Amino acid sequence: MYGNPGSGYQGYPGGAAPGYGQGAATPDVQQWFNTVDKDRSGQINWQELQSALINGQGKNFSDVACKLMIGMFDRDKTGTIDINEFQQLFAYINQWLAVFKNYDRDQSGHIEEPELAQALQQMGFKFSPDFVKFLIAKSDLQNHKQMSVDQFIVLCVQIQRFTEAFRSRDSEMKGVITIGFEDFLSVAINCST
Amino acid sequence: MYGNPGSGYQGYPGGAAPGYGQGAATPDVQQWFNTVDKDRSGQINWQELQSALINGQGKNFSDVACKLMIGMFDRDKTGTIDINEFQQLFAYINQWLAVFKNYDRDQSGHIEEPELAQALQQMGFKFSPDFVKFLIAKSDLQNHKQMSVDQFIVLCVQIQRFTEAFRSRDSEMKGVITIGFEDFLSVAINCST
Repeated sequence: MYGNPGSGYQGYPGGAAPGYGQGAATPDVQQWFNTVDKDRSGQINWQELQSALINGQGKNFSDVACKLMIGMFDRDKTGTIDINEFQQLFAYINQWLAVFKNYDRDQSGHIEEPELAQALQQMGFKFSPDFVKFLIAKSDLQNHKQMSVDQFIVLCVQIQRFTEAFRSRDSEMKGVITIGFEDFLSVAINCST
Repeated sequence: MYGNPGSGYQGYPGGAAPGYGQGAATPDVQQWFNTVDKDRSGQINWQELQSALINGQGKNFSDVACKLMIGMFDRDKTGTIDINEFQQLFAYINQWLAVFKNYDRDQSGHIEEPELAQALQQMGFKFSPDFVKFLIAKSDLQNHKQMSVDQFIVLCVQIQRFTEAFRSRDSEMKGVITIGFEDFLSVAINCST
């Protein structure tokens, strides 16, 4: 079962992304952009973004996360974003960081199973303990224990996309859908990162 | 609708992967391995694999493709593969290359919509023309025209995984399943590359 969009989703940055951050770039965003745009092309690609983003464990954000985020704001599909698109991405990343830090109560730079369960619950999702375990294991292939902020962002964007696709087919909000093979495949491939 | 596993899937390399290539490494595989294993660690990671694989358009295979392939043969989840796992991967890649070349009749290094439609049909899938168009557009974001061999491999592995997940829920082979939200999400996230 998933939560009610009117309540459970309020704290969910993904839903707010397209709306905010519009307008002229503020000075701090301009400064960030200039730092990230190493080749001074006026455009940022995922590699430039990656070199500027460090997760709480001292590692650069994964390329999956950086490509995903560039792709979300790259409206003209050039593989790069300009200063205005970057302004929105900047706000988006900061909002995710705030969410993550809120659940990373011990400031370890990663969240573990109980923290992820709580985060998802407050986003309006009621998942089984086994499912939360599975999500952690997918992120931490070797130890099955923890998730970094970039993995958390990728997961939340994935869940958001699949939830939208599911909900649009679940008109009676039963939490169950009937779906044909080709439609199933197109949802799965379309929402994959 | 999808094809009959007993007939349509016969030419599908994905299905054969776990079985073949076992045993001691042959000299050509050993030579390839030594070339790819640049740091002489006795293990290959996805970056080393990537530097050795060039698609028909003169570009290295994507990191998604290389990570996917390493992940398929990396049984101990270390992020690397040894010579024995590499032997299987080597056979796997060669089999995909042969399939791709068979459909790339004009030897252009990429396949276009009719060629992809034919390839999928011969693998036992009956997809609508719109779905094949969608697959091409997902691979070629800017021009919506063509697909390279590494994109083809990723697509076929994705389709294979999602088909297996779908089929296991479609016990009566109706081509339609009823699926709950959490199960849907776990399939989607588990099979994503």
